[in-house]
Amino acid sequence: MCGNEVRTDFMGRRVIIASNRVKRPHDFAAKRSIVKPKICFFCPGNEHLTPPEIARVENGKGGWLIRCFPNKFAAVANNFKKAYGFHEVIVETPSHNTTLSEIPIWQMEKLLWMYTERIKSLEQNPRIQYVLIFKNEGEDAGASLGHTHTQLLASDFVPDLVGRELGAFSEYKKKGKCIFCEMIKNEKRRYIFENSEFIAFAPYASRFAFETWIMPKEHIPSITKLQNLEKMAEAMKRVLEKIDNSLNYPPYNYFLHNAPKGRDFHFHLEITPRLTKWAGLEIGGDVPINAMPPEKAARFLRIH
Amino acid sequence: MCGNEVRTDFMGRRVIIASNRVKRPHDFAAKRSIVKPKICFFCPGNEHLTPPEIARVENGKGGWLIRCFPNKFAAVANNFKKAYGFHEVIVETPSHNTTLSEIPIWQMEKLLWMYTERIKSLEQNPRIQYVLIFKNEGEDAGASLGHTHTQLLASDFVPDLVGRELGAFSEYKKKGKCIFCEMIKNEKRRYIFENSEFIAFAPYASRFAFETWIMPKEHIPSITKLQNLEKMAEAMKRVLEKIDNSLNYPPYNYFLHNAPKGRDFHFHLEITPRLTKWAGLEIGGDVPINAMPPEKAARFLRIH
Repeated sequence: MCGNEVRTDFMGRRVIIASNRVKRPHDFAAKRSIVKPKICFFCPGNEHLTPPEIARVENGKGGWLIRCFPNKFAAVANNFKKAYGFHEVIVETPSHNTTLSEIPIWQMEKLLWMYTERIKSLEQNPRIQYVLIFKNEGEDAGASLGHTHTQLLASDFVPDLVGRELGAFSEYKKKGKCIFCEMIKNEKRRYIFENSEFIAFAPYASRFAFETWIMPKEHIPSITKLQNLEKMAEAMKRVLEKIDNSLNYPPYNYFLHNAPKGRDFHFHLEITPRLTKWAGLEIGGDVPINAMPPEKAARFLRIH
Repeated sequence: MCGNEVRTDFMGRRVIIASNRVKRPHDFAAKRSIVKPKICFFCPGNEHLTPPEIARVENGKGGWLIRCFPNKFAAVANNFKKAYGFHEVIVETPSHNTTLSEIPIWQMEKLLWMYTERIKSLEQNPRIQYVLIFKNEGEDAGASLGHTHTQLLASDFVPDLVGRELGAFSEYKKKGKCIFCEMIKNEKRRYIFENSEFIAFAPYASRFAFETWIMPKEHIPSITKLQNLEKMAEAMKRVLEKIDNSLNYPPYNYFLHNAPKGRDFHFHLEITPRLTKWAGLEIGGDVPINAMPPEKAARFLRIH
């Protein structure tokens, strides 16, 4: 087969889509491993083992449904002279053996509410330039604890990748158009899920096998400007559930790319399954090889 | 501890040096695993199982010491319409259970000779813009076969990361100076090994724990312009041997960053041990957390 193809994304990054290495989608499937430590710091009853709570969503029975507190091993902190910021953990469910894709849509909506509340609150700090929401699911995606959780890093700089996306967005805006609004039109053929307000698709130049982006159809700079979180929660639930069920709970990261404070942008959530290891070509050239063409990934993950 | 620090490298990439997560260097140590498959395609006697040989170094006894042939699962190929190029494998030793750090300096020199010969030969092709030499050692660094080998990707584009390094180099050159010649002066305090022609150091903004760069002290654009390979071979041997012995044969990548054809640059080899997993902050923000400050890594790896 000679179907390999070098593709370039909206910000100029190249990827080699390697059809000659194609396996059937199921060949990528992961092995689910549930780790049960003796003591889980994130389980109910162990709240005293985490740093003091910042915010919570109540469960209506005197307990919590979602909890937010500082990361005990913070990468940045407001008392670090040379690495200022806030590094927080958001525990998504009290249940140790539940994965994020298993919580109901109404609870996913509450999680998104927690995200927006924390972003809004931290953005009021004049030194904070950006709040990055990210999730590590599974050991191969960098998770060190098994109880499902999100992390948040509020920093006095815009993370490099966000800065580069913003640069491409701003450059295109000179034509009077949003590069992401245009992208949605082109990505329709690779759509995975769609409701009245959101679309999920496998991007043209996917750098990871089964990479999926979830994006509002309307031009909305930041999740904090979203009127109604329910449609986004539905898209996340459906997509994560499909990824987990069809690829056997693979390791993945996701991250929310929002507008930096006061800037224009078109926010989106990028989900990157981590089914293969990055090697010398990725690390030394920034040219990933993706053996799962996004057209095929979209057909496999598509939710009818 | 409040010693965390955001550092920025010569090309503007940020890293969080997380001293508050510091472990002792030995805590990073890997577990060496030697995989012996039933049939190794790279072992002597199985030459017929690889694509036809392109080049070899003889062992003086009718056999080979180093072999180069096309990658059977090529990412690019000269008959791929949309992913033109050459993807080759260089087997560094006939011995299955030898790691690269265990071969003697004179053989390392022959390996570097093979690199330069292949680069020179492929650069004669007018469509080829760049030849990237890279190595994946160990499963966690993306190696799929246990027998030690290097890969080479010759492409009709300059890999993105090389392009960005070159951009930073060219920008600085406007001041009439080489950014890498300047770097050597600043990195002397983090040196690991030095001989008359080469220096190895742990870079100021190391993105990986125990990251090590090997660089000629003179301004030399490409390894193909190097008069004498022996001093580079000695530096590679000493550094890889130290990494393997002190960190118990960790997974690592290395990659050679040369000048693209006909351009100026200051070539160097980057060695990136892969002792921790990249997570959401790395993938979603391009802001790595490195829990091994390079000053400490340099002291630990230093060869007296």
